[in-house]
Amino acid sequence: MQQGLTPGYDLDAPAFAIRANGVLKTVSSVPLANQADLGAMYVPGVAQVAEAIRDGVDGAARHSWSSNVVFVVSDGTATLGLGDTGPEAALPVMESKAAILAHFGGFNAVPLVLASRSNDEILATLKVLRPSFAAINIEDVAAPRCFELEKMLIDELGCPVMHDDQHGTAIAVLAGLTGALEVTGRQLASSRVVISGAGAAGIATAKMLLAAGAKDVVITDSQGILVLGRDFLTEVKSEMAALTNQDLLHGGQAEALKGADVYIGLSPAPLTREEVISMSDDPILFALSNPRPQIEPKLGTLLAGVFATSRSDYPNQIINVLASPGLFKGTLRSQAATITDSMKLAAASALARLASPGLGRTAILPDLLHPGLTDSIAQAVEDAVAERVLVAS
Amino acid sequence: MQQGLTPGYDLDAPAFAIRANGVLKTVSSVPLANQADLGAMYVPGVAQVAEAIRDGVDGAARHSWSSNVVFVVSDGTATLGLGDTGPEAALPVMESKAAILAHFGGFNAVPLVLASRSNDEILATLKVLRPSFAAINIEDVAAPRCFELEKMLIDELGCPVMHDDQHGTAIAVLAGLTGALEVTGRQLASSRVVISGAGAAGIATAKMLLAAGAKDVVITDSQGILVLGRDFLTEVKSEMAALTNQDLLHGGQAEALKGADVYIGLSPAPLTREEVISMSDDPILFALSNPRPQIEPKLGTLLAGVFATSRSDYPNQIINVLASPGLFKGTLRSQAATITDSMKLAAASALARLASPGLGRTAILPDLLHPGLTDSIAQAVEDAVAERVLVAS
Repeated sequence: MQQGLTPGYDLDAPAFAIRANGVLKTVSSVPLANQADLGAMYVPGVAQVAEAIRDGVDGAARHSWSSNVVFVVSDGTATLGLGDTGPEAALPVMESKAAILAHFGGFNAVPLVLASRSNDEILATLKVLRPSFAAINIEDVAAPRCFELEKMLIDELGCPVMHDDQHGTAIAVLAGLTGALEVTGRQLASSRVVISGAGAAGIATAKMLLAAGAKDVVITDSQGILVLGRDFLTEVKSEMAALTNQDLLHGGQAEALKGADVYIGLSPAPLTREEVISMSDDPILFALSNPRPQIEPKLGTLLAGVFATSRSDYPNQIINVLASPGLFKGTLRSQAATITDSMKLAAASALARLASPGLGRTAILPDLLHPGLTDSIAQAVEDAVAERVLVAS
Repeated sequence: MQQGLTPGYDLDAPAFAIRANGVLKTVSSVPLANQADLGAMYVPGVAQVAEAIRDGVDGAARHSWSSNVVFVVSDGTATLGLGDTGPEAALPVMESKAAILAHFGGFNAVPLVLASRSNDEILATLKVLRPSFAAINIEDVAAPRCFELEKMLIDELGCPVMHDDQHGTAIAVLAGLTGALEVTGRQLASSRVVISGAGAAGIATAKMLLAAGAKDVVITDSQGILVLGRDFLTEVKSEMAALTNQDLLHGGQAEALKGADVYIGLSPAPLTREEVISMSDDPILFALSNPRPQIEPKLGTLLAGVFATSRSDYPNQIINVLASPGLFKGTLRSQAATITDSMKLAAASALARLASPGLGRTAILPDLLHPGLTDSIAQAVEDAVAERVLVAS
């Protein structure tokens, strides 16, 4: 411990020490060893490229980094599971995310944290920056504002935009669930899936599971089960209440989980021993809260047929970054203007297929370090884009 | 030549080929080889850092990349010597600049080209992005708007801001002129210096030469010599007319250059053989227009005592990037809130000192590849900051 620190923080701990100079850096991707290198890359060479782009020469504009740049954008209103931390505290998270996207995806990722909580102002900022990037990864923006923000950016920026806490998480959950259902001998269509959390990740996961064929999904929030007619339903929650909870269950998480096959924790609400015991035999528990799972991992492992968290220090890590490097890579490569549901479902299938050969209760998903992970997902996404083009033509 | 290209552009030329994937990239600066690496750098490790910053723990916020990030910002209204190209065409220039800053300065540099020509809108954009960067390098914004923009950003952003076309250029010119005066046996105070161009670089260079002790500076623009009472004087040009042209010369470049010792070309206006011949013996010619010097280099070399350009394929390259990597490096290291005249003069002196051992007519300045260049400048800048702190305390 250094002097003057708030108790509980150790700036010499590895998590701080590795960040002494940040975890992301910009580097020249061409050699700068002699005057010829400098002349080709800077003056006079770059003037030819600038002139060609100015004159609208076909293909010239792709000779720049922006065609390969994803901005990782956050206002820090929902940082990890920590809540509203503000942008400064969100920066190391965005920086790590950008480093992971760059490292595994092979494209450029730049963290931008914003001193604004106005969707209009965020849109205006990104419009001014528009010539500087190819795609936007929204991250850690609180619900329900994140839904409107994503829609505004998709409508107005004319480039791929994805809120990774929604769709990256949903893809990874669907892929992990595919494996977990298989090892516990279940089918998605006949399983009751309880999603704890009606925030960004909860809503998107519910929608993706429904799109993949789930029939019996129940969502809970801090007020209990989403059911039509309940109090405290936002517009998006009402919409989800209509699409889920086929048995019109009322009550809290305890009522939702009785007899359920699958628990997917996407809110900080704790999961108790008694709730798990009330579920069907051999239950599937995804305790994905960040950094602290909703149930203590030792207990969860003991009680569940399959237990997963979002942490890298336990088996079965379910985390959006499994999907997003490959999803963005395939999107950039195919020069798609938007990220569609078919591209997301293709990414989830690719992820599940990779787990298949060694599938087991502690191996429902490949990890980020799985050889070929990113390229398999990117290829599946490119194929989905190509198929759509084919169908449309 | 590829099919369909505008004549004159060869997308297979080296300047294009090296940019097929851009010349700048973002990379993880920590290893990501195993789950322990991922756990320390992303979840759960990064949550500790986010919490510490949220809680205001002393020193925590410096554990992020933004404390080491310079945004290279342009609207493309004055790209190199090409004029108003728009932001897309300016991007490869900003990208090369960022790659040079990162490579030689050892900090992170991110190119941002803006779809806005409104200073208010640019300021608003950078205010929203404020938690994402430590300093701003303005680049290739047209005069006179660039002067107001720089002032607004310095006043409002609370961080170091520098328009490199002004101050980086002025520093490099002063350093180069120091060497050129010495090898031709002149003194700055007794030499007539003609600056062609009253744009960003011209004005800043004139101010810096005056600050360094020049007495006889004459500035020309497209309307001729700056002299009080002339037509077409903007506010800043009137100010400079009052500070320069002690003999109250009237006329154009030809009149200005008669008997002058030094020509500094910072506008596209050509320099003729006759004008050079009218100068004093053994004249100093800095033909710095980009990418095409104001006089053909072979002719300039023949006529001048010392001939310099801004290109890397001739001797005596005078270019802002000689100064800016070290200047920003020293500024970031010293955590200075602004870049002062004393820091800029210290950078110019450091640059001139490095040339001193091997000084000659084709070696008035070190080149970018000179060993220790950036660190020498950075140290001089840090010393200037420390001295100011000492004087103030």
